[in-house]
Amino acid sequence: MAARHERIADELRKAIDAQEYPVGARLPSEAELATRYGVSRGTVRQAVAALTAEGLVGARQGARRVVLASRRSQSFAELRSFAEWARAMGRTATGEVVGSERRPATAQEAAALHVRTGAPVLYVLRVRGLDGERVLVERTVYADWIADAVERIEPDCPSVTRRLREDAGLVFAYGEHTIDATAAGTRDADLLGIRRGSPLLRVWRVTTTREGRPVECSDDRYRPDAVSFAIHNSIDSNPLTRRHGAGPAAAAS
Amino acid sequence: MAARHERIADELRKAIDAQEYPVGARLPSEAELATRYGVSRGTVRQAVAALTAEGLVGARQGARRVVLASRRSQSFAELRSFAEWARAMGRTATGEVVGSERRPATAQEAAALHVRTGAPVLYVLRVRGLDGERVLVERTVYADWIADAVERIEPDCPSVTRRLREDAGLVFAYGEHTIDATAAGTRDADLLGIRRGSPLLRVWRVTTTREGRPVECSDDRYRPDAVSFAIHNSIDSNPLTRRHGAGPAAAAS
Repeated sequence: MAARHERIADELRKAIDAQEYPVGARLPSEAELATRYGVSRGTVRQAVAALTAEGLVGARQGARRVVLASRRSQSFAELRSFAEWARAMGRTATGEVVGSERRPATAQEAAALHVRTGAPVLYVLRVRGLDGERVLVERTVYADWIADAVERIEPDCPSVTRRLREDAGLVFAYGEHTIDATAAGTRDADLLGIRRGSPLLRVWRVTTTREGRPVECSDDRYRPDAVSFAIHNSIDSNPLTRRHGAGPAAAAS
Repeated sequence: MAARHERIADELRKAIDAQEYPVGARLPSEAELATRYGVSRGTVRQAVAALTAEGLVGARQGARRVVLASRRSQSFAELRSFAEWARAMGRTATGEVVGSERRPATAQEAAALHVRTGAPVLYVLRVRGLDGERVLVERTVYADWIADAVERIEPDCPSVTRRLREDAGLVFAYGEHTIDATAAGTRDADLLGIRRGSPLLRVWRVTTTREGRPVECSDDRYRPDAVSFAIHNSIDSNPLTRRHGAGPAAAAS
């Protein structure tokens, strides 16, 4: 049986996942949590320390702590692969190739990959899991120059990004994402074990090397009950744009 | 009848909206576009100049231009209200209050607004339009201290954010967003003129003042065929985090 503080930590993780305490909100005070769960403040302190170590809540501000991340929210501040994000959250990512083919690029794929329409590309359909549950269908199109390296990877490799970095020295440096929602098609529904027409969170992404060379474009469809995206922003001008501008000296002005 | 270059500009806008040329992709060359549309390169140049002026495409890189933004993509790099975003894109935002009531805060709202569960808040249901089409249902909960100022605003005010800045000196400085997808409920479907169960892009957001005081939290549901979100990121550490850290001197290292 789990220790009492582990049980309380798990209750808090679930409450954060369920957005009872959404990202940016403050947790109740130790005293309030102790009362709610009928445990000592010391037990609450141990439980909260575990969440702090996991990066779910931040350091104390006044008597309370701020929720920094939900286990189901993928932060978009940094470009991270699905597997890297899962690992950072203490969860296990899996992957499985469902189908793969060399075919000519569509107009959209060609524009994203900076090749001619009809140029050869590698299309890979994958289903990805989180802690054993299928949550993501990826339809990824790889540029021809990386296709051989992708095909050499075993079909159940949990992190293709990492493998390409280790095997081919390929660094995915920049990502452009367009996020919308779509209804699950027959294939999505079958692969994710959901009903056709269910809402899915969709990301169209183009990933490039540090030199700006496109490596892949992908249509990724997430189960919204399993994964969401967290974004923090401000009215100040976009720091990324600023960084691409006149450099750190200008940023300091 | 529109001039030929205006017609070509409109074709290109539609192709960008339809993600035939997604954000980050390069437009075909002037020569290719001229062939495709059966016009002179001069006409293409005039059309592309219009898109450049609108911020849809960037300056020439080699023979081609990069798509910077889709008219349907809301960039998350900066915190912008719906009306501000629409204006920046050269589109017209409208708003209409459907219902409004003072009621006790739920646990989630209370956590977001840093008030007690059951504390008085103002709930406002609004439907928002883009160029005359209803695209967004907002369920916004305002903290009690700003409720009177919100209630004084006319129900069809196109930008509540701007009005609160002008009337109450209130600046919305930071936003925390959690993005997922959901199925349209009966109310959403009625307000947006879509079928119940249609996929909607959902944003749960908490907006705070420059001092970090929460002003509002909101459940916003967008028609995904009308609005999507664009995010650019990189493997470099999050610039926002860096900015909140040791300051510009550290960023230069």
